[in-house]
Amino acid sequence: MSRVSDATAALIEERVVWLDSEMEAAIASASPDLELYRWARYHLGWHSQKLEPLSAADRRKHGGKRLRGVLTLLAAEGVGGDGPAAAAGGAAVEFIHNFSLVHDDVEDNDEERRHRPTVWKLWGIPHAINVGSNMQALVDIALLRLADRYPAERVVSAFRTLTHATLRMTEGQFLDMSAENSTEVTVERYFRMTGGKTAALIEGALRLGGQLGGAALDRAERLAEFGRHFGLAFQCCDDYLGMWGRTEVTGKPVAADLIQGKRSLPMVHALVSAPADTGAGARLRTALAERDVPAADGLMRELGTPTWVLERAEEHTRLALESLTAAELAEPFGGAIRDIAQYALQRDS
Amino acid sequence: MSRVSDATAALIEERVVWLDSEMEAAIASASPDLELYRWARYHLGWHSQKLEPLSAADRRKHGGKRLRGVLTLLAAEGVGGDGPAAAAGGAAVEFIHNFSLVHDDVEDNDEERRHRPTVWKLWGIPHAINVGSNMQALVDIALLRLADRYPAERVVSAFRTLTHATLRMTEGQFLDMSAENSTEVTVERYFRMTGGKTAALIEGALRLGGQLGGAALDRAERLAEFGRHFGLAFQCCDDYLGMWGRTEVTGKPVAADLIQGKRSLPMVHALVSAPADTGAGARLRTALAERDVPAADGLMRELGTPTWVLERAEEHTRLALESLTAAELAEPFGGAIRDIAQYALQRDS
Repeated sequence: MSRVSDATAALIEERVVWLDSEMEAAIASASPDLELYRWARYHLGWHSQKLEPLSAADRRKHGGKRLRGVLTLLAAEGVGGDGPAAAAGGAAVEFIHNFSLVHDDVEDNDEERRHRPTVWKLWGIPHAINVGSNMQALVDIALLRLADRYPAERVVSAFRTLTHATLRMTEGQFLDMSAENSTEVTVERYFRMTGGKTAALIEGALRLGGQLGGAALDRAERLAEFGRHFGLAFQCCDDYLGMWGRTEVTGKPVAADLIQGKRSLPMVHALVSAPADTGAGARLRTALAERDVPAADGLMRELGTPTWVLERAEEHTRLALESLTAAELAEPFGGAIRDIAQYALQRDS
Repeated sequence: MSRVSDATAALIEERVVWLDSEMEAAIASASPDLELYRWARYHLGWHSQKLEPLSAADRRKHGGKRLRGVLTLLAAEGVGGDGPAAAAGGAAVEFIHNFSLVHDDVEDNDEERRHRPTVWKLWGIPHAINVGSNMQALVDIALLRLADRYPAERVVSAFRTLTHATLRMTEGQFLDMSAENSTEVTVERYFRMTGGKTAALIEGALRLGGQLGGAALDRAERLAEFGRHFGLAFQCCDDYLGMWGRTEVTGKPVAADLIQGKRSLPMVHALVSAPADTGAGARLRTALAERDVPAADGLMRELGTPTWVLERAEEHTRLALESLTAAELAEPFGGAIRDIAQYALQRDS
């Protein structure tokens, strides 16, 4: 697995501390005596299953990488803004990502997240829905903390950016769930879905960084474009790995998407390329079980699906890096963003 | 059943049109081609189960009363502000109320809402969770529409008011769900729960109206106090009716809360008043079925529970009306709010 450079890792680590500190402050300003917030802290990787504080190393393991929030801060700094001042914005981005995970785990019936039981698995579906709604409110609590540091107009812009990202994320989630087991898929619909479900928040995270850092409109737009294409490339890679990645590293059985009826990019390509009136195409349109995976895999290789999926990932990676170059970020921030993108897109798990 | 005056009814009707028009505009600014929004429109009472537009009369029947949003507008106008300008704020209040209903129906396993199947019953739990999250994002979409009409500082204040209301609402929902079947209840905890679950949004709706109308801080605070006590009184009445109201009017079996293990105010009073080491108190602490209702009812009457619950409702009604008087609203808006409060608190269903 490729790694980011030591310099980038150090930049990330420092910014994760800023983000977590703003997220902590947002929660502390609510009613932290309620157990509800210990469950939120569990999901965020700060608490053990016994709801006791975790060590820094375990936090990293169970809390996720805070990739989106870090990108907001690096973008703000890359256009000449102040990182710690923008940290509440990055914290809001992370709350969006994490509330959606709490809800997605219910929606997808996923029992594990980051090597631990999901919130709904531990405390039930009704509470998990409410933990997610509460965390969606924490997004705005975090954004309001920007009002101490920025003029009101810029705070309103921050709300505008992240509200649209959240809206598009829920639209993408709708499209993803609606496509399950569907045979009427198109590549265009796939990219609309992924553009919402995965890319909208990364796009919003980068645009927000530009806005908070004081970038002119078109420079913030280049950052947003980078985010959009990075998000699309990321999902193409994720879908590739979901079909052909190594189980022992991803922690997921290969082809789990296929069996769940998810319309990931390999499946979309295969459905579009193998008409329903061919024997193989007809089989692909039935409900697949584990024993059908080798045949589906064989068909996809015949159709050139693995290569085609990787080409889509490469195309969006190229467009992402072009936009990043056009944004002309100051160093070391621009280089760190490039480093993160290349790490995320070259991972093998 | 008491009714509001014709003059108040006309004021309400006009404001519901403003609110619905702002809610429509918020949805139209999203991706209205997605079926997701037809489900939202169904929940909001605009669409039939076949997802076709409803007549105005049916909209009223299935869409709810828009009580909270109307109060925001009447408050704004009562302090000298412009109603249509504030309508996007009232629309945001209604989106909060309605997203919470979509989620509550899943959390409480309720199959009917306003005489029709709930969203989760028609389209499944995963989609219902996502419809709710999407509608929670529409709250902010509506609030951002205020930026065309108000300075940015006031828009940020509107976000602050409604974000805290939403946060407290989810905290109250947590307390409500956590209390189910609990025997460790207190009156204080009940009012903390209700203060979040029911009163926080009404309090926020009134405070927002004051803020948008340009009221000074302490006048907006009187309006918020009115909202808080009105919300508490409303829930006391609702709990009273849940135990002793008429089934044919409420559409709920009497004592449904009791059987579901909900800690409504009558149950809280009875649990606090009948110690666990008495025979009746011990029985009350077991899981109750329909056949246990007459005995529980008898015990509550012995303990003076009905009178005590009505006294709590009256106490908060009195405090609400005192705060409303202190807010010195212009007519006909102040009178209309008083009329709505008295109607809501004197209903028998």
